[in-house]
Amino acid sequence: MERDAFEIRDQDAAGRIGELTVPRAGVTVETPALLPVVNPHVRTVEPARLESEFGAEILITNSYILYGSDDFREAALDRGLHDLLEFDGAIMTDSGSFQLAEYGEIDVTTEEILRFQHEVGSDIGTPVDIPTPPDAPRERAESDLATTQERLEIAENVDVGEMLVNAPVQGSTYADLREAAGRHAEATNLDVFPVGAVVPLMNEYRYADMVDVVAAAKRGLGADAPVHLFGAGHPMMFALAVAMGCDLFDSAAYALYARDDRYLTVRGTEHLADLDYFPCSCPVCAERTPDDLRQRGNEERERLLAEHNLHVTFEEMRTVKQALRSGNLLELVENRARAHPAMLDGYRALADHAGQLERSDPASKSSFFYLSGESATRPEVVRHHERLSRLDPEGEVLLTEGSPSDNFDESWRVVAPFGPFPRALSETYPLTAETPERMDARGYEQAARGVARLVDENPDCSFTLAHHDWPASAVALVPDEVDVLDLSEEY
Amino acid sequence: MERDAFEIRDQDAAGRIGELTVPRAGVTVETPALLPVVNPHVRTVEPARLESEFGAEILITNSYILYGSDDFREAALDRGLHDLLEFDGAIMTDSGSFQLAEYGEIDVTTEEILRFQHEVGSDIGTPVDIPTPPDAPRERAESDLATTQERLEIAENVDVGEMLVNAPVQGSTYADLREAAGRHAEATNLDVFPVGAVVPLMNEYRYADMVDVVAAAKRGLGADAPVHLFGAGHPMMFALAVAMGCDLFDSAAYALYARDDRYLTVRGTEHLADLDYFPCSCPVCAERTPDDLRQRGNEERERLLAEHNLHVTFEEMRTVKQALRSGNLLELVENRARAHPAMLDGYRALADHAGQLERSDPASKSSFFYLSGESATRPEVVRHHERLSRLDPEGEVLLTEGSPSDNFDESWRVVAPFGPFPRALSETYPLTAETPERMDARGYEQAARGVARLVDENPDCSFTLAHHDWPASAVALVPDEVDVLDLSEEY
Repeated sequence: MERDAFEIRDQDAAGRIGELTVPRAGVTVETPALLPVVNPHVRTVEPARLESEFGAEILITNSYILYGSDDFREAALDRGLHDLLEFDGAIMTDSGSFQLAEYGEIDVTTEEILRFQHEVGSDIGTPVDIPTPPDAPRERAESDLATTQERLEIAENVDVGEMLVNAPVQGSTYADLREAAGRHAEATNLDVFPVGAVVPLMNEYRYADMVDVVAAAKRGLGADAPVHLFGAGHPMMFALAVAMGCDLFDSAAYALYARDDRYLTVRGTEHLADLDYFPCSCPVCAERTPDDLRQRGNEERERLLAEHNLHVTFEEMRTVKQALRSGNLLELVENRARAHPAMLDGYRALADHAGQLERSDPASKSSFFYLSGESATRPEVVRHHERLSRLDPEGEVLLTEGSPSDNFDESWRVVAPFGPFPRALSETYPLTAETPERMDARGYEQAARGVARLVDENPDCSFTLAHHDWPASAVALVPDEVDVLDLSEEY
Repeated sequence: MERDAFEIRDQDAAGRIGELTVPRAGVTVETPALLPVVNPHVRTVEPARLESEFGAEILITNSYILYGSDDFREAALDRGLHDLLEFDGAIMTDSGSFQLAEYGEIDVTTEEILRFQHEVGSDIGTPVDIPTPPDAPRERAESDLATTQERLEIAENVDVGEMLVNAPVQGSTYADLREAAGRHAEATNLDVFPVGAVVPLMNEYRYADMVDVVAAAKRGLGADAPVHLFGAGHPMMFALAVAMGCDLFDSAAYALYARDDRYLTVRGTEHLADLDYFPCSCPVCAERTPDDLRQRGNEERERLLAEHNLHVTFEEMRTVKQALRSGNLLELVENRARAHPAMLDGYRALADHAGQLERSDPASKSSFFYLSGESATRPEVVRHHERLSRLDPEGEVLLTEGSPSDNFDESWRVVAPFGPFPRALSETYPLTAETPERMDARGYEQAARGVARLVDENPDCSFTLAHHDWPASAVALVPDEVDVLDLSEEY
């Protein structure tokens, strides 16, 4: 169904810059967006500062905590959340599903909590879904999902006025269940789609599994649905998750980590005790050394660390958006993958979904930077190989890394990692790619696969491949019927 | 000769944190250090602010400009540079060699300019060396180098009191000349060693050539010499250059780029006109949007951009130092290589010098993160392969990625990218490496080379290799006499 509340403006890979209209708040939130988690009991950084100093357009708080709180329940009902939190942007509320997952039960129904969320003035509410952990037995994942789906159907029929409603997508680590859950959720009249129960995957650094789960949910949800990667607040994985098509992120990490003297960076998490220098120039770090910070009292240190954590988190979100706008989001993902071996696994898993990413990836961008062997499997390379089946070489065809030759009917260029193409396409993206002089085996192998594709599609042509010193692993992928010569052996 | 002025505290790869004692300034400069270039005629950011807000301990200015300046010559002689520039840290002065390279001649001798530098109160002076550009004819490179070497010898005999003196290392792109130049410079009584004329390489993104030039100079200079990568101010390449053993950097870029509305990042240079979001949270960027900045007047915009450029430059220097202290400088180099294909070439060139880096690389660090196929050629892997020749397996030896077996005299582990090792070494660095589940062909190939090394060194043993689904390119590197079985085919 068409999603009136969400409009996509720019795309790169499966990532997008979008606008989520939140009618009850009277605001439009630009995505990808980071929702700081605000605990009404512990305001490490005041919500008003989140808005004015960090640029937060939306935050998230837990309605179940308010619902069960002697301190806040009545105040929230009387004054409303915006007044209570002193925040003018959009406010999303969670339902208690997290508490359900942690403690086994909660004493509220979807209908009750949605009505409560509406009454306290939430702009985006959440039903009580069942977060099935990774690797749960299949039967449990299925029955939990059936319960979640019933609750989405209940939620569809609760009158919550203009409040948007989340439709969480569960299914544990079963790709088919996640995809079916996405398809079901998308068919409801609900508005925003959190991919749920991925926190355990992230805590265990299972980024490859996270990529597979998100890819499956996205296949079910389709391209138009705004997707929230629920519980994902570490800036290290924003680029990867946005490239997969996630639009909303929430961070409790900024505050929770600060309490433990943990310092976020896009390359991982550091403990304040281990830092001699701040690898950051945010207002907190530009004026202080780690030693300065260690000497502050607990409360001030926690607040300053939380502020740093917020700065680096919002900075990364801006970096992701700028990359997306510039058409080099995948270059940023390449970069961010070199933070931890598990992030590399996540990026390598992304390549398994290159076809899925290719469908939304723009046909033309400003540049393609080849930055590693993984660049050889980018969506643009997949697309070029697809395109090869629509090209029509004729007669005796030279595919060459060297000069064209009059001894053939046609002379095509060959460039790793893409493979062959007619010279007339030389100036079209992505064949304008900037590649290293020291190309790797994977790039040559991918070029050889391009040759194989072209040969396979054109059985009536005869092909000669002239390459410069390709590794044996690449030459081995060239079909036997191709006449192969190594230009570097000519002299 | 021993370098009293320079003490090395921490090492990682060929990089180090050091202390350069600058007696005339009465200060000790921690290296790696960034020297902002201050043009006495155009102070984009006041030197006092460089010290107080950005933490600059040392700056560089051009004595030849002062020497020839009607405005400043007398003031510099009367008041001295520290007073003129209002800077308490160390001041290095260049000699006019740059002008010589640009305009073909200058009207001052080494003796005159060194005396002038001494008279104006410079803390580190420079003779008039001859910067030979890359790819110059060999004869020119040799004769220029001979002239530079004569001038170093003249410089040795000029009485400049406590002022330290630079001994530039030239030799164009000839590795043997750079190495000889390094050896000659190190044998003088001069103090600091700029690797000269690399700016054209950086301007042309020839980072692989830059790595080769630095590696050659370092071979000649030896480990104890403080090395200045002259003209290198883009933060993108600090990690790579520090890992090669460079200690000092100077940046005119922060100001020159600001004049052209260019915005530095560790992933390259952006034009302000192309930015929708600031990928930074420095005090300049945290409070403003690119649109805000575009609307400022020329002078304010230039100053703010220069401040951002300085923030990101000093931030990267701190990031490099923190990585070095944490023992993960090479992980940072991996990351920074994914900024541009030419940076990848630079990092791939580094692997050619892994043996050279290995000599200063600590035997133990906190962690080894495998982050790409390039990780397979890190110095630690080279060292492990060397170590294999000192180990003594006996009898029938199983090398296995699976469980040990009683059917053999010894059961060793095999881990990509390292190759085989006795189980007792499992907990020693780097064999504690964190590696991706999705290992690449290069990692397996390097493990196979380790197997080959062990087999080669132990002709009296018989070896069986039990691997999990290694690619054919890796299995092909295992010597024929090894009995190979694939554990993933067992079931």
